[in-house]
Formats: sequence, structure tokens, C-alpha cells
Amino acid sequence: MLHRMYEGQVCSVARALEIVGERWTLLILRDALLGVRRFDDFQASLGIARNVLTDRLARLVEAGVLEKRAYSERPPRHEYRLTDKGRDLWPVVHALVTWGDRHEAPDGPPRVFLHRGCGGAVDDHRCCERCGAALEVRDVETVPGPGAPA
Amino acid sequence: MLHRMYEGQVCSVARALEIVGERWTLLILRDALLGVRRFDDFQASLGIARNVLTDRLARLVEAGVLEKRAYSERPPRHEYRLTDKGRDLWPVVHALVTWGDRHEAPDGPPRVFLHRGCGGAVDDHRCCERCGAALEVRDVETVPGPGAPA
Repeated sequence: MLHRMYEGQVCSVARALEIVGERWTLLILRDALLGVRRFDDFQASLGIARNVLTDRLARLVEAGVLEKRAYSERPPRHEYRLTDKGRDLWPVVHALVTWGDRHEAPDGPPRVFLHRGCGGAVDDHRCCERCGAALEVRDVETVPGPGAPA
Repeated sequence: MLHRMYEGQVCSVARALEIVGERWTLLILRDALLGVRRFDDFQASLGIARNVLTDRLARLVEAGVLEKRAYSERPPRHEYRLTDKGRDLWPVVHALVTWGDRHEAPDGPPRVFLHRGCGGAVDDHRCCERCGAALEVRDVETVPGPGAPA
């Protein structure tokens, strides 16, 4: 966990930011929500220094957001999986995506979220524009949007 | 604006974090959404160093999230008001509140959000639990919750 910057603040935003309020951390969570699990894949996706990534992953494990799980014994290898507490951060990442798409994506959204199976777009309340269902992260798939790199 | 840490990332989360991805910044926005407008009120609420607050407010003005507006000519005084782009960050703050309330508020939510006029609680899709309306920030009021300081 990050050191407690906001001791005096009885506020759930401040408490949430103690855990996720660091810019790389939210990008690590974005990748985890997109299915990335392994150190080298996070590293390749983010271009982050390995020692910084090691530190951020350890903090997220300590905070109960990620779980470290062995997927091979010989050689010993592990991966990082979202816990339920981690998956519950999807609304934060989705809200950041939505705002970035609206205000900071001159070429259009790099990535589009769709209601899996239904195909409707996900609106900014995380509901399906086609069928109206309130969506959880497991109900959503993502495809490249008009602003995706060529 | 913060320096661009994520040059290689064509991603709306990364672009959003270039602007709001600093812990104090999201707490400044929380306060602004709660109606705080004046430097001294932000300072008293946050307990942040004045030079840091000056810097963060200037970045938010530069990014078009806050607008600096004179409210007195003699003596010259100004305040910081959210722009539409700034109000559009409400879903980010709400998602952080919701997650913090669920996972980091052992005494219960310090603050509760209600549908103004209706009185229904705001669910985690920013819809009213009583009437089902999809809520914008102007539709919401906040009252102290069970976890509020005594």
C-alpha cells in the first residue's frame, strides 16, 4: 500500500487513492481487467521499469486487489489474478476510459466496450445501450475503436 | 498538465491519468464537486501545502477542468469553478467512493449520496435505487453516512 498521505481524511475517495492513487497502478489494473496476468506481459504492455512494476504488483497483492498464484512448479512461475476486490475496480477504470474518450481522444476511442453476446455499446452508466442491462465486467468485451493505432 | 509519462500508450485511461492521475488532484476534484471553490477552502479541507495546491489548481485550469473566475475586483479575488469537462469527472470520483465504501470503510460510508428530491440511494451504476433514473451530478445530494466522524 502507498504510504498514508491523507491521515486526516475520513473519506472513501482518499482511502481508495491510498491503494490505487498512483498512475501506473491504474494502468496495471486496466491491463489486469483486459486479461493480462504475467509479469512479462504487464512489462511489455506498459513499458514500465521492472523494479517499479515489481513494487506496484506487490502493493496490490498486499492490498488484496491482486492474488499471486503459481501456474508452474518446475520451473516455479506465478501470475497475478484479480480478486473480487480487484474486479470491483472496473467502474473506476471504465469511468476514466469514458472521460478520456470524450475529452482526450481526438481520433475517437482507441477501444470500444460492448455487451458480450448482445453487441450493444456500454453507456457511461455501464448499462447496455441496446438492451438496457446493468453490466458487470464479466458481461463486457472490448474491441479496437476508431482511435486504435493503425 | 502532468508531464506525459505514457507517450507510447494510445489509451483513454492513460490520457485521463495524464490530467487527473495524481492523488491530490482527485481529492481537489472531489471537493470541487462538493461545491468548494476558493483557494483557502480547498486548503482547509485538504490540509495540502499551499504551493502544491497552487500547482495542482493551475494544471487543472490549463487542462480545462477548472475555470478561474473573479468574484471580487477590489480586492481582487477569484475562485475555481468546474467546467463541463470537470463535471464529467463525477463518475470517476463516484466510482472511487463506491469502491472505498465497499472495501475500505469498516465503520460504513462516511458520506451517502441520494437522488435529490426523490431521496433514493445512488447505486453503483449512478442510478437511483428508488425510481431507477440515471443520475447526473446535478441530480445528487450528499449527507453524512454512518462512517462520518463524530
